[in-house]
Amino acid sequence: MAAPALERYTQDLLLGEIWKRPDLSARDRSIVTVAAIIARNQPVELPFYLGRALDNGVKPAEISEIITHLAFYAGWPNAVAAANVASAVFAGRKIGPDQLAPASVVLLPLDKAAEDKRANMVEQDYGKVAPGVVQYTADVLFRELWLRPGLAARDRSMVTVTALVASGQVAQVPFHLNRAMDKGLAEKQAAEMLTHLAFYAGWPNVFSAMPVFKDVFAKRSAPVIGK
Amino acid sequence: MAAPALERYTQDLLLGEIWKRPDLSARDRSIVTVAAIIARNQPVELPFYLGRALDNGVKPAEISEIITHLAFYAGWPNAVAAANVASAVFAGRKIGPDQLAPASVVLLPLDKAAEDKRANMVEQDYGKVAPGVVQYTADVLFRELWLRPGLAARDRSMVTVTALVASGQVAQVPFHLNRAMDKGLAEKQAAEMLTHLAFYAGWPNVFSAMPVFKDVFAKRSAPVIGK
Amino acid sequence: MAAPALERYTQDLLLGEIWKRPDLSARDRSIVTVAAIIARNQPVELPFYLGRALDNGVKPAEISEIITHLAFYAGWPNAVAAANVASAVFAGRKIGPDQLAPASVVLLPLDKAAEDKRANMVEQDYGKVAPGVVQYTADVLFRELWLRPGLAARDRSMVTVTALVASGQVAQVPFHLNRAMDKGLAEKQAAEMLTHLAFYAGWPNVFSAMPVFKDVFAKRSAPVIGK
Repeated sequence: MAAPALERYTQDLLLGEIWKRPDLSARDRSIVTVAAIIARNQPVELPFYLGRALDNGVKPAEISEIITHLAFYAGWPNAVAAANVASAVFAGRKIGPDQLAPASVVLLPLDKAAEDKRANMVEQDYGKVAPGVVQYTADVLFRELWLRPGLAARDRSMVTVTALVASGQVAQVPFHLNRAMDKGLAEKQAAEMLTHLAFYAGWPNVFSAMPVFKDVFAKRSAPVIGK
Repeated sequence: MAAPALERYTQDLLLGEIWKRPDLSARDRSIVTVAAIIARNQPVELPFYLGRALDNGVKPAEISEIITHLAFYAGWPNAVAAANVASAVFAGRKIGPDQLAPASVVLLPLDKAAEDKRANMVEQDYGKVAPGVVQYTADVLFRELWLRPGLAARDRSMVTVTALVASGQVAQVPFHLNRAMDKGLAEKQAAEMLTHLAFYAGWPNVFSAMPVFKDVFAKRSAPVIGK
Repeated sequence: MAAPALERYTQDLLLGEIWKRPDLSARDRSIVTVAAIIARNQPVELPFYLGRALDNGVKPAEISEIITHLAFYAGWPNAVAAANVASAVFAGRKIGPDQLAPASVVLLPLDKAAEDKRANMVEQDYGKVAPGVVQYTADVLFRELWLRPGLAARDRSMVTVTALVASGQVAQVPFHLNRAMDKGLAEKQAAEMLTHLAFYAGWPNVFSAMPVFKDVFAKRSAPVIGK
């Protein structure tokens, strides 16, 4: 192999140490890794990490949902490439369509108040700038995709935050990191996502995300004056 | 297929609805899609969308110019990979070199006043920081590439804006979006580019671009005081 | 070929002119090019440029170190893909493992004062936000990776700055560009890196980096008041 030190770091440090750190489960690490690799469009690495995800307890139907989710949050070509790889991995493990979420499902109930608040804010800001984006964000993303039951809300948010960090898009991290933490992602787990992503998306992306995470953590733990 | 919901969204929503929305023609959508895919270096998806572009009326010579243009605005390796794919697609359709723009062409006339203004500004800002960049920006980009007649100025700007949005580089959007609109891109079309790119470059890139588009739209429609 | 103008620009401008400009050696340009291509995950272009790097005097052991370095600064999947390509290139040239740096090496001496200062700053800012990142940044990156002797400190910094510019991550450029210049990268060479990267990472990334380079250059040449 052309880089013996890389091979040693892969075995001893990445697989041998990072994946075993306690603050994030192997299942969560698999979701984060698969999401980062799809967001960064690196299908060559995907078969290994999809297999690892299945071994770590991520269900085929959840992988299916992660891919569909990332069509919207990382772009269609990334998701289509991932779906092709996943089809081959599933076939190799005799995972049939009965184990996947069907295209149409009964959606989870909508938190109408929260969604109306979000939709109004975006409508005010951008309703006249890009009406199509605003419309599909509401109708397809928040009233459909996010309500598909095949992936827990907390995991869906973890996938979204991963995609943002892994592609260097920190502007939308506060909204989605807060959402992830509202749905059960502990601060320690969010912090450990950064450790894990330093290796899979590179140090620079993580150093750009750290001040944003810091700010979200600080605001969530600050005492609310007058309450 | 590993993601039945993705397959449904591809047929019903993306190809069945988005591509048929009225504010941007199928030809324009093809140019935007091809440019986004090249800028994001996803050659696997390219044969399908190059074929679609040809079917939608984008000429082989225009595809040739889009690829050359993106060598500069998305990086050489992206363009070389795209050229290899396009060569195969052209061969499959019996499109010969006679249908492509030759390497050397008679350039369109230069708007000297506008180019001098642009060049002076960049020279003042960066002439001593990166003289090579400043020199090639003038000599090769604005006095040559942009004046090649094989792609309309409006389309060339649309390709450039697409590359910027699709790679998360919003800082140069104001200059190039204004240029696109000066050359005939309507505000409705620019807005609809964002809807289209949400699907092909992902929601996060588009949400980062929306405030910049908003600002450009606002400044262009603001009454000029004292005029 | 689908883009005759691109072919002409490749021969006449890129290979025929840019690579021969005096302010950056062919060896340095090879390091920058290989680093940019790995950072942008474009393994298809890599065999050609790895061969060129070897021809220009970059040693196999240095390529091995560049790849390992970029595992951390561009993400593991990028480095693994590059290592696979490099293995094939090395095999084709009968370059055996004896010509590569071993996985474990005697490290260069640590500049403890400088590292303590860096570590304290990062610990203060992010020690409670992402303790894992902070720990590995010190233990693995600055007390190990950066001290591996197979790649000169100046070249290692050049690789890091390249990865940052090529992936649009300018926030950490000041730290690493200063470090590169402290270790011997001349201002003219840094400026010429931008010219070279305009072609390999695209104009937009370079235009985003220019104001940051400008600021670093200005601060380094400013007279220190009271000294």
